[in-house]
Amino acid sequence: MANSPSGDSMVERIVRILATFDSGRTAQTASEIARRARLPVSTTHRIVSDLLTSGLLERDEDGMVRIGLRLWELTTRGSRALGLRELAVPFMNEVQREIREHTQLAVLDEDAVLFIERLSDRGSGANITKVAGRLPLHASSSGLVLLAHSPGDFQEAILGTPLRPVSAETITDPRTLREKLAEVRRLGYAVAPGFIESVSTGIAVPVEDRAGRVIAALSVVMPRGHEREQTTISALRRAAAGITKAIEDANFVSR
Amino acid sequence: MANSPSGDSMVERIVRILATFDSGRTAQTASEIARRARLPVSTTHRIVSDLLTSGLLERDEDGMVRIGLRLWELTTRGSRALGLRELAVPFMNEVQREIREHTQLAVLDEDAVLFIERLSDRGSGANITKVAGRLPLHASSSGLVLLAHSPGDFQEAILGTPLRPVSAETITDPRTLREKLAEVRRLGYAVAPGFIESVSTGIAVPVEDRAGRVIAALSVVMPRGHEREQTTISALRRAAAGITKAIEDANFVSR
Repeated sequence: MANSPSGDSMVERIVRILATFDSGRTAQTASEIARRARLPVSTTHRIVSDLLTSGLLERDEDGMVRIGLRLWELTTRGSRALGLRELAVPFMNEVQREIREHTQLAVLDEDAVLFIERLSDRGSGANITKVAGRLPLHASSSGLVLLAHSPGDFQEAILGTPLRPVSAETITDPRTLREKLAEVRRLGYAVAPGFIESVSTGIAVPVEDRAGRVIAALSVVMPRGHEREQTTISALRRAAAGITKAIEDANFVSR
Repeated sequence: MANSPSGDSMVERIVRILATFDSGRTAQTASEIARRARLPVSTTHRIVSDLLTSGLLERDEDGMVRIGLRLWELTTRGSRALGLRELAVPFMNEVQREIREHTQLAVLDEDAVLFIERLSDRGSGANITKVAGRLPLHASSSGLVLLAHSPGDFQEAILGTPLRPVSAETITDPRTLREKLAEVRRLGYAVAPGFIESVSTGIAVPVEDRAGRVIAALSVVMPRGHEREQTTISALRRAAAGITKAIEDANFVSR
């Protein structure tokens, strides 16, 4: 319904408008939105105007357009990402208190890792992950955990795509990646030293639901050379077990 | 554009559909959505179908419709709520580590408090606030702080509306509320014992931007009778000052 001559639906045009915003670009003019969404300026102005009226977008003091708090509220309130996040945060806090580095919760979404929460300390080191940010499956410790526990055909599909390097140390050879995934399953955790940034190591463990399916990855990113690997893995495992128990108690359905 | 005979825009219908989801109702059938959104079933099915195609909504294993991770991602990534949250979390963590009770960050949105982050410990007491949840301005400690630092005409407008009780101890008399707001400005913090739930006390302080405008409230909710009021206020004030400094360093624009 409400299709344009080019055949994209009104919903699709709204998605293209929303997708022009990101954490580095939270305020834009309607004309910038039109250009980035590759939509006609007049169409964009009309849709942006409707989105402003409904509060899904807001105009700030300088006349720039932003994602509205109302849209954030509507989507956060009903999202299963939030449900899992709420159950996980007390356990993430315990990891945070012991390890004092960035602690992240991530889920698999399509062919990437999507981070749904990150807790950080003031003294925490470098970390490019952001809440609602994505990283490739083969490069991040969380991605390696999620990929290692995915169905075989999905793993093969990822192994069959070009494995692009994020850093000089990202695994880009399918055979090496297949061995790494087997190691992750055998050990029950993933260590990714320098795979994303040369100065950082990611360490991740799987989070299971009550049926034993891996539904998320819990990770810590720490300065390379100061990993305290066994302490970190123990803290992550205790937290992951706590989250599984909380999921069971809350009767939480992840998918 | 794309208006229905009743005059509501396509955007407005999408808003009504999204608004049927909340933290207690994360999965619905399209027919339930139609009923709750007060839209015709056939219209709802068409829009839901477009929203499913674009990934803004998802269908789970049981065929129920949920808010899509893609929508959560798009809106979280570009939202100023997230920007403020990212700057604040390390300081909230320090409050959390010292006080070990629920720590919340809230902003004023229209005539309510909107909570944009909450950190909790496993041992934390009762607390009805949720991330992306709302509370009335006159009842919560965060709301009292935000209201006390709002423009005078806005305060008068709120004082002129019916002040509905949330608990038996919520301030509902405009004169008492006006005195409470003056006290909050004088002391620099708000204490709300039992105003939301009889078993809990909220304590909140203002968070200022670099220009000295109050842009958020930072609060702790703790079991009543165990408030450790001065320790809590000191911890909150240190954190609020840290957030103001971080806002300045990041050149963060709140509105």
